[in-house]
Amino acid sequence: MSNIRHITLPAGFAAAGVHCGIKSTAQEDLAVIVGEREVAAALLTTSNQVVGAPVLWCRKVLGAGFGRIRGIVINSGNSNVCTGKQGAADAEAMAAETAERLGAEPGEFLVASTGIIGHALPMGKIRKGIALAAASLGWRNDPAVLRAIMTTDTVEKSAVVQTRIGGQPATVAGIIKGSGMVAPSVATMIAVITTDASIAPRTLARAFKSAADVSFNAVTIDSDQSTSDTAVAMASGMAGGRIAPGSPEDKKFTAILTEVCTSLAMAMARDGEGATRLIVVRLRGAADDADARIAAKAIADSPLVKCAVHGGDPNWGRIAAAVGKSAAQVVQGKLSIKIGGVSIFARGLPRKFRARAVEKHLASETVEIDVSLGLGKGRFTAYTCDLSREYVTINADYHT
Amino acid sequence: MSNIRHITLPAGFAAAGVHCGIKSTAQEDLAVIVGEREVAAALLTTSNQVVGAPVLWCRKVLGAGFGRIRGIVINSGNSNVCTGKQGAADAEAMAAETAERLGAEPGEFLVASTGIIGHALPMGKIRKGIALAAASLGWRNDPAVLRAIMTTDTVEKSAVVQTRIGGQPATVAGIIKGSGMVAPSVATMIAVITTDASIAPRTLARAFKSAADVSFNAVTIDSDQSTSDTAVAMASGMAGGRIAPGSPEDKKFTAILTEVCTSLAMAMARDGEGATRLIVVRLRGAADDADARIAAKAIADSPLVKCAVHGGDPNWGRIAAAVGKSAAQVVQGKLSIKIGGVSIFARGLPRKFRARAVEKHLASETVEIDVSLGLGKGRFTAYTCDLSREYVTINADYHT
Repeated sequence: MSNIRHITLPAGFAAAGVHCGIKSTAQEDLAVIVGEREVAAALLTTSNQVVGAPVLWCRKVLGAGFGRIRGIVINSGNSNVCTGKQGAADAEAMAAETAERLGAEPGEFLVASTGIIGHALPMGKIRKGIALAAASLGWRNDPAVLRAIMTTDTVEKSAVVQTRIGGQPATVAGIIKGSGMVAPSVATMIAVITTDASIAPRTLARAFKSAADVSFNAVTIDSDQSTSDTAVAMASGMAGGRIAPGSPEDKKFTAILTEVCTSLAMAMARDGEGATRLIVVRLRGAADDADARIAAKAIADSPLVKCAVHGGDPNWGRIAAAVGKSAAQVVQGKLSIKIGGVSIFARGLPRKFRARAVEKHLASETVEIDVSLGLGKGRFTAYTCDLSREYVTINADYHT
Repeated sequence: MSNIRHITLPAGFAAAGVHCGIKSTAQEDLAVIVGEREVAAALLTTSNQVVGAPVLWCRKVLGAGFGRIRGIVINSGNSNVCTGKQGAADAEAMAAETAERLGAEPGEFLVASTGIIGHALPMGKIRKGIALAAASLGWRNDPAVLRAIMTTDTVEKSAVVQTRIGGQPATVAGIIKGSGMVAPSVATMIAVITTDASIAPRTLARAFKSAADVSFNAVTIDSDQSTSDTAVAMASGMAGGRIAPGSPEDKKFTAILTEVCTSLAMAMARDGEGATRLIVVRLRGAADDADARIAAKAIADSPLVKCAVHGGDPNWGRIAAAVGKSAAQVVQGKLSIKIGGVSIFARGLPRKFRARAVEKHLASETVEIDVSLGLGKGRFTAYTCDLSREYVTINADYHT
């Protein structure tokens, strides 16, 4: 992926990823992504009640959840969470330092930090990193940017869609980091979406919320939710034209944005800590969509289901138990379960099935679980990964 | 423990545990626990919407959740869940067979089954087991009974308290099995409590519900909830006297029952699948008790917290994040955390602490996490265990 552009492919964006020594390894640990000029922006942050200083800063910059900014500065290796007044001052200083280097105002930069909780940011290193990044901003730095936002992620994760909206060529691109502490409501993740589409901040925010609901918010890796989740979408407007709210162009843009966000969400689930495969849980026939979300998440959150997939065991009883314990309406005699398209449990009764075919599917890179509640038209798709010994190793041996 | 009596210590009970071949090992797999005469009984069952045939049978026998019965027949190795009409007939047949052998009515026997989901009970073996058990009922069979209800449990779990209530000597005893799929609302467990106290079914039910709320319902091992959870309390009345509802004797009996149930709950958490230690989460200062329960459970359910304890890492950031993601009211600046009595995070700020002392505590058999929300008088204590690679091994390698 060394020469591929992602977030800088939409016209009007530049980026840099540098190593400044926050991480103990030689990997990049600070990134700056900026618009050439002001961009429309939409912000989504964690719903955790314990939040990091960077999240509070972002909420200050974009009080309504949308507005106009220049860009974002991101560091990995230290999340600047539970760091009191010093942490708040440091987050603001990161924005101010970046803005100063690029001739902007502090209030035009968002800040995102990911990594260890409860330690003061090493501001000397951060300042050095920002100076380095500002000096090397360009169009071909995307691989370094991708690496700079990673923590326990094992692969760089990005997505790009190029299309035409209202007759104009337009590009939507995104990068994401995830891995651990990823759960409902914009999980422990940092996602940055760039587009050259011409769209007002409020319209962008509506599209982004809609896209996030079925993508980032459909992922659960370990049911733990971070204090730092931050997703930002930035639109440079350089594609020309104008996407009017509610227009066919708006619908198309929202669909493309949803496609990019879903692709990022699936990549994040597949790269969950210790994961060996992606699990897609498609829930249908719920009383309504809200119930479908609850039931799908209950399956995706079940450690027993995730262990069964890891072990390649078609243990549908655990799927039935997971859906039954959820707050969604479930009628045992109407419940049906398929794994890899093979019907295993239909309307409350086990079916004879070819165990070989299902076990083969369970060994593949993407495992599909289809559950029908047989009650209504509600549907939702959730994404998760299997639960492995490696997950425990990563999280038991990671020391503060 | 071979000569110790537990559930048969209260006057008026006999029991037997036998091997009839449901389990592939030579371990006992069928138990009968009976009163010499009719006993007062209270029943608690899973809140999962997918439930096993034995649970439905028990709810039929004790429609109000309490009443008078003769006893209970329990098998391990097969849960008789998702088995349709055949399963319902088999559950009833287990009760009828036991009743016939002991000169009682089918509707006087509860049934509990634990083990694999979705397979018909081997009724030939079950009938043989019931005949064997009925022929060997006695006062000294408790160790075999304890083994007969175990699945992935690694140790037999029981508790006994002998005391005086209203001037009469009285005994409350209990046995429990748990291990996996153990979560809120009477987890995957079978618990049988016996007592010789003289108490009406309705009064017993009220005491049992109160005791279960702070014991069985305070345990979470993996947030997965079973389709088969069954807890029953039986009172023979042979201690004499009479416990009137709301009397000081009722309060004392409830306290003793709570002590026995809490002891069983802690033993179950300590013996969670793959567990190497018990984790006690004491939550104080919540807005109310309901909030305290939610926050304590969020910590106890967090795989990241459980991995950190497994790794011996005082990772308080994960505790803060877990409590913050919960639905309980949390104010970051009022949150305080202690591990093993050592203050680590106080009113929203990290404190310097002797890492050695905390790491030493984390290596002990019982890990204590104290969290204060600093908001009110709500309190709750939850019980869980650490999350180990062994948990994944057990649940990935267990094949249906």
